[in-house]
Amino acid sequence: MQKQIIQVINPNTSWGMTETIATAARAVASPMTEIVAVSPSQGLPSIEGHFDEAIATVGVLEQIKLGREQGVSGHVIACFGDPGLLAARELANGPVVGIAEAAMHMATLVATRFSIVTTLPRTLVIARHLLRQYGFEHHCAALHAIDLPVLALEDGSGMAQEKVRARCIQAKREDGSGAIVLGCGGMATLAQELTHELGLPVIDGVGAAVKMVESLVALGLSTSKHGDLDYPRRKAATGVFQHLN
Amino acid sequence: MQKQIIQVINPNTSWGMTETIATAARAVASPMTEIVAVSPSQGLPSIEGHFDEAIATVGVLEQIKLGREQGVSGHVIACFGDPGLLAARELANGPVVGIAEAAMHMATLVATRFSIVTTLPRTLVIARHLLRQYGFEHHCAALHAIDLPVLALEDGSGMAQEKVRARCIQAKREDGSGAIVLGCGGMATLAQELTHELGLPVIDGVGAAVKMVESLVALGLSTSKHGDLDYPRRKAATGVFQHLN
Amino acid sequence: MQKQIIQVINPNTSWGMTETIATAARAVASPMTEIVAVSPSQGLPSIEGHFDEAIATVGVLEQIKLGREQGVSGHVIACFGDPGLLAARELANGPVVGIAEAAMHMATLVATRFSIVTTLPRTLVIARHLLRQYGFEHHCAALHAIDLPVLALEDGSGMAQEKVRARCIQAKREDGSGAIVLGCGGMATLAQELTHELGLPVIDGVGAAVKMVESLVALGLSTSKHGDLDYPRRKAATGVFQHLN
Amino acid sequence: MQKQIIQVINPNTSWGMTETIATAARAVASPMTEIVAVSPSQGLPSIEGHFDEAIATVGVLEQIKLGREQGVSGHVIACFGDPGLLAARELANGPVVGIAEAAMHMATLVATRFSIVTTLPRTLVIARHLLRQYGFEHHCAALHAIDLPVLALEDGSGMAQEKVRARCIQAKREDGSGAIVLGCGGMATLAQELTHELGLPVIDGVGAAVKMVESLVALGLSTSKHGDLDYPRRKAATGVFQHLN
Amino acid sequence: MQKQIIQVINPNTSWGMTETIATAARAVASPMTEIVAVSPSQGLPSIEGHFDEAIATVGVLEQIKLGREQGVSGHVIACFGDPGLLAARELANGPVVGIAEAAMHMATLVATRFSIVTTLPRTLVIARHLLRQYGFEHHCAALHAIDLPVLALEDGSGMAQEKVRARCIQAKREDGSGAIVLGCGGMATLAQELTHELGLPVIDGVGAAVKMVESLVALGLSTSKHGDLDYPRRKAATGVFQHLN
Amino acid sequence: MQKQIIQVINPNTSWGMTETIATAARAVASPMTEIVAVSPSQGLPSIEGHFDEAIATVGVLEQIKLGREQGVSGHVIACFGDPGLLAARELANGPVVGIAEAAMHMATLVATRFSIVTTLPRTLVIARHLLRQYGFEHHCAALHAIDLPVLALEDGSGMAQEKVRARCIQAKREDGSGAIVLGCGGMATLAQELTHELGLPVIDGVGAAVKMVESLVALGLSTSKHGDLDYPRRKAATGVFQHLN
Repeated sequence: MQKQIIQVINPNTSWGMTETIATAARAVASPMTEIVAVSPSQGLPSIEGHFDEAIATVGVLEQIKLGREQGVSGHVIACFGDPGLLAARELANGPVVGIAEAAMHMATLVATRFSIVTTLPRTLVIARHLLRQYGFEHHCAALHAIDLPVLALEDGSGMAQEKVRARCIQAKREDGSGAIVLGCGGMATLAQELTHELGLPVIDGVGAAVKMVESLVALGLSTSKHGDLDYPRRKAATGVFQHLN
Repeated sequence: MQKQIIQVINPNTSWGMTETIATAARAVASPMTEIVAVSPSQGLPSIEGHFDEAIATVGVLEQIKLGREQGVSGHVIACFGDPGLLAARELANGPVVGIAEAAMHMATLVATRFSIVTTLPRTLVIARHLLRQYGFEHHCAALHAIDLPVLALEDGSGMAQEKVRARCIQAKREDGSGAIVLGCGGMATLAQELTHELGLPVIDGVGAAVKMVESLVALGLSTSKHGDLDYPRRKAATGVFQHLN
Repeated sequence: MQKQIIQVINPNTSWGMTETIATAARAVASPMTEIVAVSPSQGLPSIEGHFDEAIATVGVLEQIKLGREQGVSGHVIACFGDPGLLAARELANGPVVGIAEAAMHMATLVATRFSIVTTLPRTLVIARHLLRQYGFEHHCAALHAIDLPVLALEDGSGMAQEKVRARCIQAKREDGSGAIVLGCGGMATLAQELTHELGLPVIDGVGAAVKMVESLVALGLSTSKHGDLDYPRRKAATGVFQHLN
Repeated sequence: MQKQIIQVINPNTSWGMTETIATAARAVASPMTEIVAVSPSQGLPSIEGHFDEAIATVGVLEQIKLGREQGVSGHVIACFGDPGLLAARELANGPVVGIAEAAMHMATLVATRFSIVTTLPRTLVIARHLLRQYGFEHHCAALHAIDLPVLALEDGSGMAQEKVRARCIQAKREDGSGAIVLGCGGMATLAQELTHELGLPVIDGVGAAVKMVESLVALGLSTSKHGDLDYPRRKAATGVFQHLN
Repeated sequence: MQKQIIQVINPNTSWGMTETIATAARAVASPMTEIVAVSPSQGLPSIEGHFDEAIATVGVLEQIKLGREQGVSGHVIACFGDPGLLAARELANGPVVGIAEAAMHMATLVATRFSIVTTLPRTLVIARHLLRQYGFEHHCAALHAIDLPVLALEDGSGMAQEKVRARCIQAKREDGSGAIVLGCGGMATLAQELTHELGLPVIDGVGAAVKMVESLVALGLSTSKHGDLDYPRRKAATGVFQHLN
Repeated sequence: MQKQIIQVINPNTSWGMTETIATAARAVASPMTEIVAVSPSQGLPSIEGHFDEAIATVGVLEQIKLGREQGVSGHVIACFGDPGLLAARELANGPVVGIAEAAMHMATLVATRFSIVTTLPRTLVIARHLLRQYGFEHHCAALHAIDLPVLALEDGSGMAQEKVRARCIQAKREDGSGAIVLGCGGMATLAQELTHELGLPVIDGVGAAVKMVESLVALGLSTSKHGDLDYPRRKAATGVFQHLN
């Protein structure tokens, strides 16, 4: 078993959040895994809608390309909307896993139904689309939003964290689900504590995705280049996209 | 009834295709509609996968922003994957319609099931995702790819057009569907002729989307700003994305 | 662009409702469109269940046949259950659009999810069946009934209209949807005012269907006669159905 | 256990087919059941599309009303499209079962998947809609049409019957399904023989529906009048529909 | 019409419940049907989860084998989770019907949507899985649990029965469904009384399953041995399973 | 990171297959993981249908109980039907993963659609049910059976292995899917070689499940005991099931 590098990409430009994510990733990584946490040099400080995701996706792709050139073993996209996931798979050699998909997959292994607790109500539509795309719409009992923006998780007050906790408690009591998925990379470090406090699995996608990439690498499985996830067809990107060629 | 401008955005940088699209749009537009066909200043010459779509989406958003500043009444995204559709709706004041959705909607109004004929097999996954997202997976009897890249439609040889025609004939014979949707903006000008030759509706999304935007404008309906298609939350995009602020 | 006639069929025998519908249709029709609003000579004064729909369907078919003989360009079925839609498509040359489908299609273009506000609770099952048939069950966040019969909209008291308004306000507050579909032809003239008052798209199917028929005509698309919407097989209808031969 | 009457309604006007249906019904009815086979006095000689169904539905409703007045215990609608089923349930006191639903229900009890063999290709859309409405789309492995009209089953040549047999044999070989549903009331008398010849359940809906009505009656279960299958709201039908009041 | 034996299998070892089930079965059986009610000699006193079902399934299979050797005409599995249904179909000659499926099928024939009232919340997941497997997830408006274990129905206090009644009344008022399915074999004898009191069909699966087996026998339909319900492949079961060979 | 034991349960009694499975498990396990491969002392030599699964499930539960008493960290059920999965989760403290679910989950991370290659056609229904239960029916492009029994993989001739290979090649050419899932524990050791030969991910569930259990353990996630996967309710199992108390 060799040393391997997993690139964990925070798609927004908030370095504090990158550090939160890196901490969560390192806490569960194998001793043989080095976590390299990165974020785009340009883009948006948080991702809370489709427009934000569109911009973040370009940053994700830049990082995927850099990671590939550096020979990393695999990539994690550490934003709960999994922005640019399929595009990133086209670009990558190794496996690419999003934190929303990772958390949802893991949740279905430990409970028959799960709840999601996320930030702003406007992001719920993204979670709903992912549930359908990944096949888990029947496994999700309820979606909740704490109605605070993503960066409230980084303001140091702890208020957003307290709201997450309160919503998790409510979800446990009312939803009839056996597990809770945390719907934002910025909540990653809350999972373990809430799991203990609530007495049911509270799942962070960052850690889940790191373990899934490690697993795929160990199994010798990488993104299929047969068919629709093959490398992008070679053609000249122009302007600010030239560096993605 | 006032004069109105509809912005038709070709998300790729191939000007020939923009002209094909503009022609198809103008052929069906109301006399009170002015079609302004645009394409991004930078990006990719064709869109044939998720990576291509991710890049094209930024170009689409730039154009949406410009169109909004120019006071256009509505926007058409003229690439069959409808790249950036929901992001564009967040950014726009007026209605935004993609050509894939427009063609699919129209097809369900004239037939109980339809077939799709598109370019490369690798784009089929995008069409399949859109069918699910829009709700039409049970209305689509079959998907076909002519196995030629998008730009083959622009090479002047007519070979790609002939392959489209052959596939449409085959689809009519074998699929048990009542209509055919053309799965590429570059096929837009073929629809009318094939409709006549084959004796069943062959639907181009460019024209369909123009009429849908006109309809929404006439009905006084615009993208809802209540909820998850509201304008992007104000925050500072950095770097090459600054102009999208 | 030629002058064209669109036949708008009120499937019930209440002339007041036919006038409401005609008003809504004319308010949005193109200057080149003449609206001919008709209703069956015999049948039921309102349609509030499957039995009512079965009877209304015969009236719809009679009118479709008359309209076809008069050379109209297309047809609208102006009752929210879209009674007889597929049968009408078999009988018609031109396109036929129901107001429920038209409103639902339009709603998906301006919002990620919509709510429906209709009359009696017993009609909800019809709306639910249409959502599944058209593919929009995942786009509908909630269905509401004001619990008044259809003809309460015609009693001049305005009470039913006020109940519709109240339910729309409640739907906006509670459903997490971005648009509201009015679930009865008799509500057609309320849409514009409610759209302004509520600040989100409130959609009337009558206007929507008129624009869709205009669009299909402009695109040269008519009901497919290849396959299962072909003209009814020729055979002798007897008794009171002879005139449908 | 009392004597009971089950009304079996052939929705078309072909008396020969009514007799075929009556024979199939009587062959399986309990000794305590009297089968009264009826058909509308006016309508169409066969039902092969939505237009035909719309007309047949009025005939079905007339017969339901007559049967109710005669005090029958329950009703069977003996046409594979189950025309007018929900409207009939509104009108009836007792249970109403369609032969398509009955055959499909029974098929799911004896096999994990079934095939359907019907008459004209244009009727397949009706079968597909019923599969979705009843919930059996995942239980149906394949649909087949012999491409002969319904009345070919009544021409005395036996050719249609032979085609049905050939298709059933092919379905057994190719579909991977464990049972076959006969998709036309006119095929009712073929089921038993084909079951023996092919060595798998070949299911006729007429017999199946008779047993289901008997079962519902024995269980004391009738069409629910709580909610959306309640009797039609009282209002004056005019013209040729007056007798349905 | 010959005398026939239907074996009704109570999958748990509580003889009181076997008697309740036998009573309900005999109350609706045809005079030509003899009900033989059995339960496994070893196993669990009640079934309230997947583990319980796994054990009960072995008992069901033993009884199916015994019943087959005794030449019974068909089998009923009288526990609402239908434990071992497909395995039992492989083993049996005759038809096998579960009480959950029977009740759900019947409910769809008398109402457009139904509610379920069952015992412990932890069994709801089983009911939900069955709804999906049988195709009825869109026909079920709501699921309710009285939050008492199965054997509370046998404690003679009547408290569980009263809770069932209260939940049925609440379901009628709130769910918008037209029928109620009782979700436990131990509730079988409540159905008729509740049907009368509530004025809507309250359905017991035991009686429903008996009538369905009688129907299948009368129709000459038995479990298909073509394909995946064929007899188990012959191989030597060892240990405590030897008697199942 | 502590040493941990993962119990890999072959649900059949064929020791050769247990060794194949153990080999595949050890090939990918972390250095800190000890694989303990077990199989039931009594049961069936292979599992090829629902009856076989019902018997195997009891053996699985016995082993789960033993493993729990021995303090293993988690469990793998190494038969492609995942027999007894939810019952095992009730009984276990730690996580339990089936090889079918593990392989399917992994496949969706490296390809947009996958194919399955399994043994006998009669087992396809089980795979289809699992696809629906897990949410992956839209991710599976095709299912194939080599039409040889499970034990043909153990006969030393290599013929079954060659048939698997041929089917994988055919699936790659025809299905339009990007990955292949091997549908039997006995095929586990073929995956790596076929992945290299075919140039696309060929996925064995045994290895996949081991990595998933390791991942869940590392993440501190275990089967939720809140809700429907809680420990079985305490009640006295009798007879041969006493040891499961």
